Amino acid sequence: MSDIYNFSAGPAILPKEVLRQAQEELLDYEGSGISIMESSHRGAEYSAVHEEAQANFRKLLSVSDDYAILFLQGGASHQFAMIPMNFLGKGQIADYTLSGSWAKKAIAEAKNVGQVHLAADTDKDRPTRVPSPDALDLTDDAAYLHLTSNETISGAQWKAFPDSEAPIIADMSSDILSRTLDVSKFSLIYAGAQKNMGPAGVATVVIRKDLAEQGAKDLPSILRYQTHIDGDSLYHTPPCFSIYIVCLVTRWLLTKGGVSAMEKINEEKAGALYSAIDATDFYTGAADRAHRSLMNVTFNLPTPDLEAQFAKEADAAGLKGLKGHRSVGGLRASIYNAFPREGVDALLTFMADFEKKNG
Amino acid sequence: MSDIYNFSAGPAILPKEVLRQAQEELLDYEGSGISIMESSHRGAEYSAVHEEAQANFRKLLSVSDDYAILFLQGGASHQFAMIPMNFLGKGQIADYTLSGSWAKKAIAEAKNVGQVHLAADTDKDRPTRVPSPDALDLTDDAAYLHLTSNETISGAQWKAFPDSEAPIIADMSSDILSRTLDVSKFSLIYAGAQKNMGPAGVATVVIRKDLAEQGAKDLPSILRYQTHIDGDSLYHTPPCFSIYIVCLVTRWLLTKGGVSAMEKINEEKAGALYSAIDATDFYTGAADRAHRSLMNVTFNLPTPDLEAQFAKEADAAGLKGLKGHRSVGGLRASIYNAFPREGVDALLTFMADFEKKNG
Repeated sequence: MSDIYNFSAGPAILPKEVLRQAQEELLDYEGSGISIMESSHRGAEYSAVHEEAQANFRKLLSVSDDYAILFLQGGASHQFAMIPMNFLGKGQIADYTLSGSWAKKAIAEAKNVGQVHLAADTDKDRPTRVPSPDALDLTDDAAYLHLTSNETISGAQWKAFPDSEAPIIADMSSDILSRTLDVSKFSLIYAGAQKNMGPAGVATVVIRKDLAEQGAKDLPSILRYQTHIDGDSLYHTPPCFSIYIVCLVTRWLLTKGGVSAMEKINEEKAGALYSAIDATDFYTGAADRAHRSLMNVTFNLPTPDLEAQFAKEADAAGLKGLKGHRSVGGLRASIYNAFPREGVDALLTFMADFEKKNG
Repeated sequence: MSDIYNFSAGPAILPKEVLRQAQEELLDYEGSGISIMESSHRGAEYSAVHEEAQANFRKLLSVSDDYAILFLQGGASHQFAMIPMNFLGKGQIADYTLSGSWAKKAIAEAKNVGQVHLAADTDKDRPTRVPSPDALDLTDDAAYLHLTSNETISGAQWKAFPDSEAPIIADMSSDILSRTLDVSKFSLIYAGAQKNMGPAGVATVVIRKDLAEQGAKDLPSILRYQTHIDGDSLYHTPPCFSIYIVCLVTRWLLTKGGVSAMEKINEEKAGALYSAIDATDFYTGAADRAHRSLMNVTFNLPTPDLEAQFAKEADAAGLKGLKGHRSVGGLRASIYNAFPREGVDALLTFMADFEKKNG
């Protein structure tokens, strides 16, 4: 069959090399005679995978020993609940920045637990953008400050992060490992794997050990970060196969030169698309130029009908998943780490052709 | 390589046919050109998998429309927390039966949430057994009655279930789909997939819709059963690949004649092992005869040294994972649905040889 390019926002494309290796060893992992899916989570084979995935991640983002790296179930949505349950005590206020759909979900869940103050609100701004790091309305003695580093739906991304006396907690589900990052600015970073790290079913949590210690003690064990630190993410059976793929993806990233090399490639891929969008009035970027996401390139055509036609014809041409999220419409090209440059070039060609025919 | 038989208690053996199919289509799911791991959870390919897995499960256990079938993350351990958070209100009492290690964990988490009464306690009984269904000390107006249908570690299994005015909730992680079951006796059944259904990373929950409606409303959304019923287990991104394997495993079960055919095979496999154990004084069953598990056959040898030697030599002979859980010692053969009769025969031969040499 001809080439398929998968622009899906998540679950998303994985490196072909990773899938090929997983396929090859699916029935016999490293000569054990069984699949890694069938291996005990306490056995030698899986233990090595678990440790390597953590070590790779630590190396890729130069994470210091002040932090634990956890693999938890429930994705980012589960973190939306765990964070306030652990760290938003009675009488406390948590600062949240409202930058779009995903921030809104995090805020709704925090409000189920305690008191929330909006330190910024750019939700209704068009073109879409995230708050300015130096213009936040911060609460004295806030329990923490929460932000969403990249809004997958709107395609807006924080380019610089705020300073804060309160611990900063960030949902980085859609741009983790896509760019260099000073982890030390954050007390907790979480990310569902299904965009830049692996398949759905696991979230990586990077948490300062001294923050975890301060978490509420009267919660069920599984909802406490300290439980998972104590158990090294083996408090209960982990999602072994998903973590195995994360292990292979992070290994692949290291062979590709790590996060800084990937950032350069991501800037080139996104830059090529934004240049094409800016070169004509037929296409309009949905995000403010200063906040354009390197991961989710969102754009519009002159009419919703043309957008629907674009998505349909692109799909037929093998460019899959370009339809924007149903809540905002338009088009969205999700070009995570694993998305190849050739797919971007194929989209550029398609965009030029489509404009020629319909512009 | 020679045959390997995987007696691991979980994550555990999967049907070879399932693994072969997963391998074959790992890079190109049904001609889509992409992996099922890379498919959007809202797309046609994954949606069909999601629906079929639910439908297969419903068919296998004849689950009526009064129940929802959910695929949730966090395994049984997450259910230990969700159950009391949803259904054990202030001033209420939940009845729990303490039958072994897994029941004990469920009880500990319920105590983190509310008031627990022990309706029975067989934890210290030797040979190990579960409570008698007609000898429970039940609380009037209990919020619910909880039991653990099969204790994976001790190898004791409920053969008949109690009657109760309170809703019955059961952890069936290690014997779900292994025997026929009158689901209508229960209000909630939950099971981590990694023993009889698929890989780690997903739990199946069968819940009466009218019970879910009564769940606490002041919880974070993700912790409410009603949320997942409303979202058809797509409230957040589900663990797609794990559910895909559950879909293949349940499809495989249907082609094998369903749960009643499997029960017959399981009785034969376990029966052969228990007969061999009973035929000699060298081996002793760890569980009371009336409560012997069809899934986890636990037994002892005359000394711990001989048990260690048995596990070591068995492992070298390709019989993997026979060492009993570290908390109880002894030996354990976990022979879930996917475990082949030939593996049982290989163990029988090994047992006879080992006794001849060491008895």
